[in-house]
Amino acid sequence: MEHFSSNLLQSAVEEFSRLPGIGKKTALRLVLHLLKQDREEIGRFSEALLQLHKKVVYCSECHNISDSPVCDICSSPRRDRSMICVVEDIRDVIAIENTGQYHGLYHVLGGIISPMDGIGPADLTIGALEERLRKNNQVEELILALSTTMEGDTTNFYLYRKTKPFNLKVSVIARGIAIGDELEYADEITLGRSIIHRTEYVNTTIK
Amino acid sequence: MEHFSSNLLQSAVEEFSRLPGIGKKTALRLVLHLLKQDREEIGRFSEALLQLHKKVVYCSECHNISDSPVCDICSSPRRDRSMICVVEDIRDVIAIENTGQYHGLYHVLGGIISPMDGIGPADLTIGALEERLRKNNQVEELILALSTTMEGDTTNFYLYRKTKPFNLKVSVIARGIAIGDELEYADEITLGRSIIHRTEYVNTTIK
Repeated sequence: MEHFSSNLLQSAVEEFSRLPGIGKKTALRLVLHLLKQDREEIGRFSEALLQLHKKVVYCSECHNISDSPVCDICSSPRRDRSMICVVEDIRDVIAIENTGQYHGLYHVLGGIISPMDGIGPADLTIGALEERLRKNNQVEELILALSTTMEGDTTNFYLYRKTKPFNLKVSVIARGIAIGDELEYADEITLGRSIIHRTEYVNTTIK
Repeated sequence: MEHFSSNLLQSAVEEFSRLPGIGKKTALRLVLHLLKQDREEIGRFSEALLQLHKKVVYCSECHNISDSPVCDICSSPRRDRSMICVVEDIRDVIAIENTGQYHGLYHVLGGIISPMDGIGPADLTIGALEERLRKNNQVEELILALSTTMEGDTTNFYLYRKTKPFNLKVSVIARGIAIGDELEYADEITLGRSIIHRTEYVNTTIK
């Protein structure tokens, strides 16, 4: 697709097609869709990206995306400062926040240790986490909420060893059969773990 | 997904998720991808959209997207001004240009007549096409390259009737089995048409 009648159209299509999972044809469809909208829509889109480009930062405490040097979660007086939940990326923070079940702080690693992809501990914010624990003695518990993959397990173990000097309680999030899932369709490993880590029956309806 | 730690992130995600086929999760993935890139990348993306917003126009002749009041195709001295190919939208112009087989002019309708979607002749650039034919007596042939659907057929017939006063040759693009396709997988209608509209055998290899 080289014969664009408009260079402006072409450069917008090229920008879209640089995004993951978006090919040239989809990019063209998206740009033509934008052109069919109210012109203000494109201006607003452009402005949102410009503001993001200029102003967004990473929180100096937890490395979450933030509009200010310290993010809303880290600076909130209502958050429980005794626990830090360690996650791989920003999407995990959003997912956990949406549950409404966690009121502690976070630490965003920016990835997990993966020698296959050339990602070592130095590429992640692990040093910053140690620094944070050194400066702050309110923290009592570290909750590891990483993927249950070999890389996740490796990272869990590395974090466990690195944070040992701080004498924290280190926990991992529970793994088991998802609520609403049928047992027969669960994989053996998950089902096996859910039996090993069974909890005492308490008569409550799931909210 | 309401708990964004950054309003800037949130508005960028909202802009992306307004695009067709892009949900909130995909939009977030795309914006996080942009943030992981060089910051200049976002600036360039924003600028491409801003330029598109400010400067892109529709060609006053053929209604193709253009950077100038009359598009490159309509203003080119190398194009054959005796034929106009009528297409539904800009993507069709790009597709035909990429074949390298057509050197005439275009007319972009901006859709096809579809009473089900509430699109009538007045919503398309049919009036502008008549005006164009009235002003220009170089045109000898009108090539209709619309979809082979009921709506496409209706639009073909409407265009045929409306342009009758101009005494043009009106043709439609050939329909048949695609090059490289196997007969057994072709639908009956296409196969049937390809037999009716068979052409004399000429010994050339397909380029």
